[in-house]
Amino acid sequence: MLGRGGAAQAVSAQAWLDGMLAFESSLAHAQARAGLITDAEAHAVARACAMDYDVAEIGADAGEIGNPAGPLVKALRARIDVAHRGATSQDVVDTAAMLVAREALKVIRTDLSGAADAAAGLARAHRDTPIIGRTLLQQAVPTTFGLKAAGWMVGLDEATAGLARLRLSVQLGGAAGTLAGNSLDVLRELARELELDEPVLPWHTLRGRIGELAGALGVAAGGVAKPARDIVLLSQNEVAEVREAVGGGSTAMPHKHNPVAAISALACAQQAPGYVANLLASMTQEHERAAGAWHAEWRPLSVLLITVGSAAAWLRASLEGLEVDAERMRANLGDTDPDPGEAPRLVDRALEARQ
Amino acid sequence: MLGRGGAAQAVSAQAWLDGMLAFESSLAHAQARAGLITDAEAHAVARACAMDYDVAEIGADAGEIGNPAGPLVKALRARIDVAHRGATSQDVVDTAAMLVAREALKVIRTDLSGAADAAAGLARAHRDTPIIGRTLLQQAVPTTFGLKAAGWMVGLDEATAGLARLRLSVQLGGAAGTLAGNSLDVLRELARELELDEPVLPWHTLRGRIGELAGALGVAAGGVAKPARDIVLLSQNEVAEVREAVGGGSTAMPHKHNPVAAISALACAQQAPGYVANLLASMTQEHERAAGAWHAEWRPLSVLLITVGSAAAWLRASLEGLEVDAERMRANLGDTDPDPGEAPRLVDRALEARQ
Amino acid sequence: MLGRGGAAQAVSAQAWLDGMLAFESSLAHAQARAGLITDAEAHAVARACAMDYDVAEIGADAGEIGNPAGPLVKALRARIDVAHRGATSQDVVDTAAMLVAREALKVIRTDLSGAADAAAGLARAHRDTPIIGRTLLQQAVPTTFGLKAAGWMVGLDEATAGLARLRLSVQLGGAAGTLAGNSLDVLRELARELELDEPVLPWHTLRGRIGELAGALGVAAGGVAKPARDIVLLSQNEVAEVREAVGGGSTAMPHKHNPVAAISALACAQQAPGYVANLLASMTQEHERAAGAWHAEWRPLSVLLITVGSAAAWLRASLEGLEVDAERMRANLGDTDPDPGEAPRLVDRALEARQ
Amino acid sequence: MLGRGGAAQAVSAQAWLDGMLAFESSLAHAQARAGLITDAEAHAVARACAMDYDVAEIGADAGEIGNPAGPLVKALRARIDVAHRGATSQDVVDTAAMLVAREALKVIRTDLSGAADAAAGLARAHRDTPIIGRTLLQQAVPTTFGLKAAGWMVGLDEATAGLARLRLSVQLGGAAGTLAGNSLDVLRELARELELDEPVLPWHTLRGRIGELAGALGVAAGGVAKPARDIVLLSQNEVAEVREAVGGGSTAMPHKHNPVAAISALACAQQAPGYVANLLASMTQEHERAAGAWHAEWRPLSVLLITVGSAAAWLRASLEGLEVDAERMRANLGDTDPDPGEAPRLVDRALEARQ
Repeated sequence: MLGRGGAAQAVSAQAWLDGMLAFESSLAHAQARAGLITDAEAHAVARACAMDYDVAEIGADAGEIGNPAGPLVKALRARIDVAHRGATSQDVVDTAAMLVAREALKVIRTDLSGAADAAAGLARAHRDTPIIGRTLLQQAVPTTFGLKAAGWMVGLDEATAGLARLRLSVQLGGAAGTLAGNSLDVLRELARELELDEPVLPWHTLRGRIGELAGALGVAAGGVAKPARDIVLLSQNEVAEVREAVGGGSTAMPHKHNPVAAISALACAQQAPGYVANLLASMTQEHERAAGAWHAEWRPLSVLLITVGSAAAWLRASLEGLEVDAERMRANLGDTDPDPGEAPRLVDRALEARQ
Repeated sequence: MLGRGGAAQAVSAQAWLDGMLAFESSLAHAQARAGLITDAEAHAVARACAMDYDVAEIGADAGEIGNPAGPLVKALRARIDVAHRGATSQDVVDTAAMLVAREALKVIRTDLSGAADAAAGLARAHRDTPIIGRTLLQQAVPTTFGLKAAGWMVGLDEATAGLARLRLSVQLGGAAGTLAGNSLDVLRELARELELDEPVLPWHTLRGRIGELAGALGVAAGGVAKPARDIVLLSQNEVAEVREAVGGGSTAMPHKHNPVAAISALACAQQAPGYVANLLASMTQEHERAAGAWHAEWRPLSVLLITVGSAAAWLRASLEGLEVDAERMRANLGDTDPDPGEAPRLVDRALEARQ
Repeated sequence: MLGRGGAAQAVSAQAWLDGMLAFESSLAHAQARAGLITDAEAHAVARACAMDYDVAEIGADAGEIGNPAGPLVKALRARIDVAHRGATSQDVVDTAAMLVAREALKVIRTDLSGAADAAAGLARAHRDTPIIGRTLLQQAVPTTFGLKAAGWMVGLDEATAGLARLRLSVQLGGAAGTLAGNSLDVLRELARELELDEPVLPWHTLRGRIGELAGALGVAAGGVAKPARDIVLLSQNEVAEVREAVGGGSTAMPHKHNPVAAISALACAQQAPGYVANLLASMTQEHERAAGAWHAEWRPLSVLLITVGSAAAWLRASLEGLEVDAERMRANLGDTDPDPGEAPRLVDRALEARQ
Repeated sequence: MLGRGGAAQAVSAQAWLDGMLAFESSLAHAQARAGLITDAEAHAVARACAMDYDVAEIGADAGEIGNPAGPLVKALRARIDVAHRGATSQDVVDTAAMLVAREALKVIRTDLSGAADAAAGLARAHRDTPIIGRTLLQQAVPTTFGLKAAGWMVGLDEATAGLARLRLSVQLGGAAGTLAGNSLDVLRELARELELDEPVLPWHTLRGRIGELAGALGVAAGGVAKPARDIVLLSQNEVAEVREAVGGGSTAMPHKHNPVAAISALACAQQAPGYVANLLASMTQEHERAAGAWHAEWRPLSVLLITVGSAAAWLRASLEGLEVDAERMRANLGDTDPDPGEAPRLVDRALEARQ
């Protein structure tokens, strides 16, 4: 329930392992292109990287040495000792983190966009459907359901855009971040090979990228939580203006129709702030490699990607099947004059701005 | 100590009041330009806004009604009843928040840039100064102090850039966000008048802007904390590679030379994550106005701006007067071969990328 | 609005100053009793502490040296140089923090208990009043309003009890926490004088007390937020089962009756988690005095006390004037058989357990 | 590395499943004792609970219905339909959470106590060993290493005591928390059977227990982080006053001796604040079952238990093998008169208070 959508898989132990192997293989190719090793050596490294490695075994050994790259590098160099040349464990792990994040972000953006599309459909269909505006959870003055849905859409689109702006950069610096044993050419080639950004400097202890990623995911969670909360509130029996097609009853109470998807989206989204706080606090990293703060990033980053991905997938499911009861909306207005102000034109404006 | 620099003043009660008055005055001008009220009425509103209002009195009354705009609007309309037409309290307060944030961000960016300039100076001067690289707080392999300082610079510049990308938008929507009683023309003119962005939709409960602001300030705090921590560590008597000119002794122990500025920067910066978490959690806002989550933004936003501003100002002071002991750096290297790898070229690259 | 109740005043700059002066005066008395100074000297210190000190001036100077005790101690010793003997700034500030917290906690507990009393009254009066139970914000099966109110009461009483269990201890250790220049006798007498606990060791960098205080305040915030949210939801026009006597309309929409007190309680309570996170993160304090983490406690601690105090005061106001519409509750049950299970007996049990 | 010690296993999916089965089996026994079902039926339920259930399958199905109890209850009732009588999913999951937490807390307290014992040993052995006291990371005045270790011990003991005070209560309330279909007798018997506390009321949406658990774990994390940070700082080559026996070199730099255990303890401990913030924020739970906030507890609670457990286990390993270099401590004092004030007597006092 807390891991719907593809983000959980994109962040799996296997995905991390694949990312680390992609780093090692690409590093060898980059070094060959820069003339530091031969093409034959690079191919040998690539072949070694294509072999099978046992995720569970690597993970168990990682506990001993203090990071997941150690055991993998050891296994790899037992096969071909030119591997991992001039690199440090953090080069491997940070680059793998960026590759893992890239895949997870793709999935998350797809689900956020899907949710926004569904909201756009609702906005278009209900551009003029009157609904009572509610402020402080009290009935206030009318608006249209289309404008409400357009707001959801805008919030989701902005969150998606924020995730698209992130810097996902390769990491390569070696033991103290000086590129000793490598060169700027290797850095450039490695970035090209992996289709990641080339950083100005190694960023072993410059964690702005992680902080920005955290912030953007936190905003995305908020962009999901807002419509999810609205749907839960509009689904109350006493309000009954929308109904989730995907919702379901409980075993004990089959008459209930719970907005399960919106509730699950909320449950996932509201975990984000704590994980973000952890990642921001971990930006205080000492000297050339931190004494703890780097390692403290891994779990919060993983669970943040998973929970935001799950939130987006649930909200999409909720919105794609949302049933709107325009008659009930009208009934709940009572005697209020349903003059919606500029609401319909605001809907048009939001839909146009989207294209 | 926790409110150094200009941010605290930019976030003062007077600044909030000024922001609210600027909204009301500009709204009247925008409405005159859109033909909703006469020029004479607009001027009358502007005159009423230019009069004196007692911050303390407005603040005290705000407690009664639940937001600071209420008492001000009441006082203003007692003078000229065309004021605040079609607006709601949240229009006033949100716009004032954006104006306050804009001024605070100016100050913060200036101090961050000043700190980055100082770091750039150190990077240039110590491009080739050998220093032992430290990983996990253990001596590892050599780098140069210039590369360390270049890293600080890059982190600060990235943080500054993040703050410059923020959307600072006017708020105008009226009671339920439909622009009833106003128009899209008024919205556009108001944005122009106040030199704020024009949002696609009223964003009463679409708090992406606040979340993005929070995230960027959190990243800025991290960008400050990293060099501050390094300076504190390098200042230890047993390391003694740098010394703060602005630092000072304690009353009881005059022989001490505490890196007070870096410590204060740390003290301020490390408060950010909790405030950011609060602001992200507050993005879950109901319907057309939230029942609590909007009000819950005010204090975390204010203290976040103040604390990040103070952190930046302290770090700038620390860096601008930082004394570097290259001999001690060399001595601490011991017998280690001081080959810095590509460190000097990385410094050049970072300095060039800056221009 | 965010500072209702007495907690804000208990945490004022004047209260901090009074706390610091109480420390200095009591320290002198304790030292006289332990034979370290004469009674005459102790009286002279007490007289100096009873003089006027300018809060604003002390505060301004505090920024220079990095903590608020420095300027005060300087002013005090200019009058009588035996003052502050063997003490360090952190002794003064930590003890003042405990005194400030003690007063704030008194106020908070009073308001929490008042809120619990009001909930108890509702539980008793509505022991048998049927209301539909709502799970996942959907109507489920019946309960009684009395049981709902009894739940609020229990949550508030537990929160109050948690605040009563806290250790509020004097701080005295001197420059490195060794009691050099003082003695264990002085520590004991000082604790007795100030009616604070006597710690086993100076706790300059052992911040369990602050962490426990933070945790208990966080739990209290949650204990307030639950009933506040319920009241806001029950006050929705479509539900209309309760109504705040203290609530009010908005200027623009006089027909509205907003549950302002419950909303304000929520707004205050939901700030707590971030402040708590800051205080817990600040527990990582180095050696004999932290380089930043101690100073990082002050603001989060102050705003946490204020916001929890304000939340409690608002909820108390909400509950003390809550109007219950038993007929509407019955109507909302519709055809559901109003069998409340053991709800009435659970109410009795909770009320009995309270006495 | 982030899951050392037994807490991770105590929080495994299998442990959760076992907890849920223990609830169902004990509920049947309690109901038989209260005369609601026959002994034969209770035994049949117990037998069904003793059968094999596939953790992965239950977990997969849980995603569909929105909580892990649903699929298990379905499987169980297919075997014996009297199972789970009068219970709701949250009864099962909350009780399982308490059982899981109880086992995890046992492990955590054991490791915290073991760490405290090791610190006590150091305090005793180095009662009089002079070391320079360091404030703001600058050398200040002397203390003894024994007093430093005694401080670690006290912080760890206090954290352990905090975990021992927690309320771990059974959950039983049925669909709306009214005990419909059960009785107060069943509640009492169930608590006795599972050796959990009997709550005054069902606590489906009264989450003080979870908040208190979170707070105490956050304090425990802080109690671990303080000595861990000190050890990392004392292990710096330039200070070199302690050395971890369990520490190790890196592959690339065999001359390094990293304090891996203390660093890992820090990495684990500093994740706690964000998870605690999430759990406190989740206390705002609606009516008789929350729409999201309950589900939002599961992951933060699990990772909090795991990370604090891991932190405690790492710190214990660090302290149990810590090598102290008293000569280096003396050398770092330089010309400072090593008068330790009351430090030795404070050590005695802390050790005595412990017994």
